[in-house]
Amino acid sequence: MITFDDILDAYRRIVDTVHHTPVITSRALNELSGNELYFKCENFQRVGAFKIRGAYNKISSLKPDQLKRGVVAFSSGNHAQGVALASKLLNTSAKIVMPNNSPKSKLEATKAYGAQVILYDFKKENREEIGKKISEAEGRELVPPFDDELIMAGQGTIGLEIFDIIKRLDYVFMPVGGGGLLSGNSVSLKYLMSRVRIIGVETEPANDAYQSFRKGDIVAIKPPATIADGIRTTSVGTKTFEVIKAKTDDIILVSDAEVLEAMRWIFTRLKIIIEPTAAVPFAAVIKNELKLKNKRIGIILTGGNMDMDDFFDLMKTKTND
Amino acid sequence: MITFDDILDAYRRIVDTVHHTPVITSRALNELSGNELYFKCENFQRVGAFKIRGAYNKISSLKPDQLKRGVVAFSSGNHAQGVALASKLLNTSAKIVMPNNSPKSKLEATKAYGAQVILYDFKKENREEIGKKISEAEGRELVPPFDDELIMAGQGTIGLEIFDIIKRLDYVFMPVGGGGLLSGNSVSLKYLMSRVRIIGVETEPANDAYQSFRKGDIVAIKPPATIADGIRTTSVGTKTFEVIKAKTDDIILVSDAEVLEAMRWIFTRLKIIIEPTAAVPFAAVIKNELKLKNKRIGIILTGGNMDMDDFFDLMKTKTND
Repeated sequence: MITFDDILDAYRRIVDTVHHTPVITSRALNELSGNELYFKCENFQRVGAFKIRGAYNKISSLKPDQLKRGVVAFSSGNHAQGVALASKLLNTSAKIVMPNNSPKSKLEATKAYGAQVILYDFKKENREEIGKKISEAEGRELVPPFDDELIMAGQGTIGLEIFDIIKRLDYVFMPVGGGGLLSGNSVSLKYLMSRVRIIGVETEPANDAYQSFRKGDIVAIKPPATIADGIRTTSVGTKTFEVIKAKTDDIILVSDAEVLEAMRWIFTRLKIIIEPTAAVPFAAVIKNELKLKNKRIGIILTGGNMDMDDFFDLMKTKTND
Repeated sequence: MITFDDILDAYRRIVDTVHHTPVITSRALNELSGNELYFKCENFQRVGAFKIRGAYNKISSLKPDQLKRGVVAFSSGNHAQGVALASKLLNTSAKIVMPNNSPKSKLEATKAYGAQVILYDFKKENREEIGKKISEAEGRELVPPFDDELIMAGQGTIGLEIFDIIKRLDYVFMPVGGGGLLSGNSVSLKYLMSRVRIIGVETEPANDAYQSFRKGDIVAIKPPATIADGIRTTSVGTKTFEVIKAKTDDIILVSDAEVLEAMRWIFTRLKIIIEPTAAVPFAAVIKNELKLKNKRIGIILTGGNMDMDDFFDLMKTKTND
């Protein structure tokens, strides 16, 4: 299981490369919530999302001969861009296996960072198998999206940066997909803030981690239809789940409609662009199933990558359901 | 004519009330421009725009008996919200004369700050006359949108905050409507950065300041049809123009289509929400009529207040003209 030392090691590797993203606040949203909210803005991170942290930590830990052979990753989203940019910065070659229905902006950004994109038919083919085949045939190191200690430790550096700005929080809310973000930051934040409670949030259709947490065993679901495309994973990982069981306080659910409502609040009050997955934890804070009042709550805004037209279409959707 | 001391006085009055807004940068936009760009984010300011600076400076300078009688202002936009919030914070009553076609978000925000909104028919009535009538009948102090030394000095405090973060800039670009922002910041920035050049930017339909600057006398135009609603003023003020003539280096023009293109870049790369007027100076930097290369350029993003649906409609407009 990863420890706080792993996260410190990760931070030493990535600190000169990643942005120390700002923490922002809003009187209006504090009033709306009845709590003091601190938004950690990873939408302003390089590649537009926190994924550069894990990817850079992983790839910068490779040995020279591994770097010579290059890396391979499979991802429909921000992990692809994270691996692509980290590879470019570390002078290694990257192949990224992406579904042929990926958002145009993410395909283009991944290519723009110099990675070679391998498209596959998401209805017929299995991206993990394609990734493994390339890895074996070409000797490329596989950079997994979450179930890897270096990836988990890299994502956990967000907790260090939050602590750098705010020394005490009662709660920190963040989305949970495969569990890389949640496991890493459960470790870093629990180490730094003795009484903080860590809450993972999923959307109702993507409730695998919610089920797993309650059952105590990993539950897999079918690919979920949710607007939160960053958490469409079908199950958490074995390494991430081990940490989540030990360190996370709860995993709770919100609806897609609640996520859209949260995006609208962020748009009108914070004046920043986030992607749907990033709105998931704030949706839970507004919903306030835990009945929190006058608490100091950290919220990780995980990313801001969206096709502009998709963003507008989403935000125009009526949510009176 | 206002001096640097007036701006320091203003800053002492407002410093505990306004946000010291961040200055942000983007590798991608630096590459696009070929220059080093520094964006001063007044879209994150209280009331969502820089106008709180001038309004608070003006109203906090009133005498106790004036504060007892209250204030009146006319504005279709951010000045209304600035006066409303400043009045609330300073415990005075505000009446704001607003056109009946004002964006819903701005009407609601103005009322939410506790101001009384007086609607008028923008096709038939003159807002200045209505404002003056209320001022005379009720003894309320008029808080003008720009042509007032305390307003100009308040807006000029942005220059102090830019200098607080960056000590040397070659150019600073900002929009020009009535000239409050441009005059105040020409004074503060020219005092603090010896060789900086100050560029005011208008859209082509709203080219009154451009004409005035070239002619050396104030030129008035008909109410212009431009998407940059913050600079739909028909002429600069006599006080603001005196400063602009003395301190501003140039006033240049961009098209509405170029403003939309600039908004798209800000959306996709900076991941922040700005209103069209705030994109005007960046549009000029992209257009680069002045052929700048490897310069350090400050850009004032003046505000971020827009109805969400208006924002989407604008951003979806094709700009292949």
